[in-house]
Amino acid sequence: MQIQIFITGGTFDKEYNELNGELYFRDTHMKQMLEQSRSQLNVSIRSLMMIDSLEMTDDDRELILTHCQKSKSDRIIITHGTDTMVDTAHYLANGLTNKTIVLTGAMIPIVFGSSDGLFNMGAALAYVQTLEPGVYIAMNGQYFSHDNVRKNREKGLFETL
Amino acid sequence: MQIQIFITGGTFDKEYNELNGELYFRDTHMKQMLEQSRSQLNVSIRSLMMIDSLEMTDDDRELILTHCQKSKSDRIIITHGTDTMVDTAHYLANGLTNKTIVLTGAMIPIVFGSSDGLFNMGAALAYVQTLEPGVYIAMNGQYFSHDNVRKNREKGLFETL
Amino acid sequence: MQIQIFITGGTFDKEYNELNGELYFRDTHMKQMLEQSRSQLNVSIRSLMMIDSLEMTDDDRELILTHCQKSKSDRIIITHGTDTMVDTAHYLANGLTNKTIVLTGAMIPIVFGSSDGLFNMGAALAYVQTLEPGVYIAMNGQYFSHDNVRKNREKGLFETL
Amino acid sequence: MQIQIFITGGTFDKEYNELNGELYFRDTHMKQMLEQSRSQLNVSIRSLMMIDSLEMTDDDRELILTHCQKSKSDRIIITHGTDTMVDTAHYLANGLTNKTIVLTGAMIPIVFGSSDGLFNMGAALAYVQTLEPGVYIAMNGQYFSHDNVRKNREKGLFETL
Repeated sequence: MQIQIFITGGTFDKEYNELNGELYFRDTHMKQMLEQSRSQLNVSIRSLMMIDSLEMTDDDRELILTHCQKSKSDRIIITHGTDTMVDTAHYLANGLTNKTIVLTGAMIPIVFGSSDGLFNMGAALAYVQTLEPGVYIAMNGQYFSHDNVRKNREKGLFETL
Repeated sequence: MQIQIFITGGTFDKEYNELNGELYFRDTHMKQMLEQSRSQLNVSIRSLMMIDSLEMTDDDRELILTHCQKSKSDRIIITHGTDTMVDTAHYLANGLTNKTIVLTGAMIPIVFGSSDGLFNMGAALAYVQTLEPGVYIAMNGQYFSHDNVRKNREKGLFETL
Repeated sequence: MQIQIFITGGTFDKEYNELNGELYFRDTHMKQMLEQSRSQLNVSIRSLMMIDSLEMTDDDRELILTHCQKSKSDRIIITHGTDTMVDTAHYLANGLTNKTIVLTGAMIPIVFGSSDGLFNMGAALAYVQTLEPGVYIAMNGQYFSHDNVRKNREKGLFETL
Repeated sequence: MQIQIFITGGTFDKEYNELNGELYFRDTHMKQMLEQSRSQLNVSIRSLMMIDSLEMTDDDRELILTHCQKSKSDRIIITHGTDTMVDTAHYLANGLTNKTIVLTGAMIPIVFGSSDGLFNMGAALAYVQTLEPGVYIAMNGQYFSHDNVRKNREKGLFETL
């Protein structure tokens, strides 16, 4: 079984630009994360975009959906900014029925040392191997069905409706 | 659903003693790990022992088994040194039938910055919520049934028999 | 000999706000830095302000100058944002003649793990103990007299005029 | 002015061997440390040995002395295990009169994240540029003349006699 990992950006992969003090994207850190984790899973990593999820459009979501549909794998992880992760989960659920899709992200960039990203990625990889087909969000150690979750922006946490 | 986490030591919780250059145990880092992970799971953490798994005796394993049996939770994670993790999994499987037990650990101590521990803990928490009753090992992103796994000591990885 | 450390903010002490993705100030990390460094120096730490140095006004600089003049110590370190560090050094040099003042900062926040701050602080503490009275900038392992230094913004480095 | 950096090992450069749980040496981390520090100093790095300072013999010290004497630079930093750092300082002081030699080390390995090494290296580089010829130890933010220092093994700190 091969697990497909699609990268779309989000806090997960943000870097600090020391010349102007702003956060930006360069490359994904997925490969290094899986190496640090000693993961032996058979994964295929592909970056679809590198954007803040607040900037994600329905065209972007259609692109993600198309890639999920075309992927040879029926177990897919999508790294995604947390702000519109639920929106993308809804979008994908409308176009996919027979695959296990897990969206995950991070509240703190991987490169900042104190990130929740490695934990979330461990959970997402476990959930994608064990959950029935459907579209899920894996955050805060929990998994949520796409139609029963929202981000609580004041607390920075995901919760059921 | 409450998840029970039993701490037994292992590389996971080792610290560096700067006075003599040796590794030792002080306290578990589980609470800080779950905080960094923004985990919202309902967990109960209890330290049963703090030992290197090469020093673990069958008396120790009996103690762990007893705690698993008595726990009100039927979803239990055990942090454990990797060297004899498989032995403990066998021992527990002989005495437990109706609970989901997931053993996990780390190759690099949590405090060393480049640890696999946070990833493994994320995976273990996901597996314990989704796997059928049984005794499992969660390492390298994978889960293994207790009766189909060994540690490859040359590579430092777990693999199926 | 007591060394006075004045905190003014800058990248050094910036934190990541996971709720809105912006950098902000909370408290200085000086105490933890000196603990990690096993410093045995006799220091007095005082926060004068916590601002981005691009926002620093001459009123702020006058406040810093006054504190330097009034300090019982004649060896003073000032942590400062790098963007206007040279301006503040000039300002202080006009009002101080008999003290050794060393300004330092960081290109990467201390909390981000890969910061240059700990190195810079080690250098600043050494320079403040060994240099003649004057106003200096300690960055990039080097020390610069206040009247022979500029920040090269394209490279993010300090250099002589 | 070029600064010569000689590497001899010590806690500074120790790594964790995840296969057997022991600390060992591989390569020095000096280059990465200076990169993280954004150092712009003109340095030449050379590894003379990679050993625990408890294993250092007078033959080893003679080798270090010879390299110090032959170096084109008269400003030299030596990274060294803390246990016998004072012994080596004495040895070098007997054979060198016209160079500034600064020995430094770390209580926690660089790779462990919470190391004092980056701070110590910042201080050592500043001291080697500013101190008169002589043999010094730079630890705990302080500098000590070779003939007025000892390591307090209970506290893990250097102190004057």
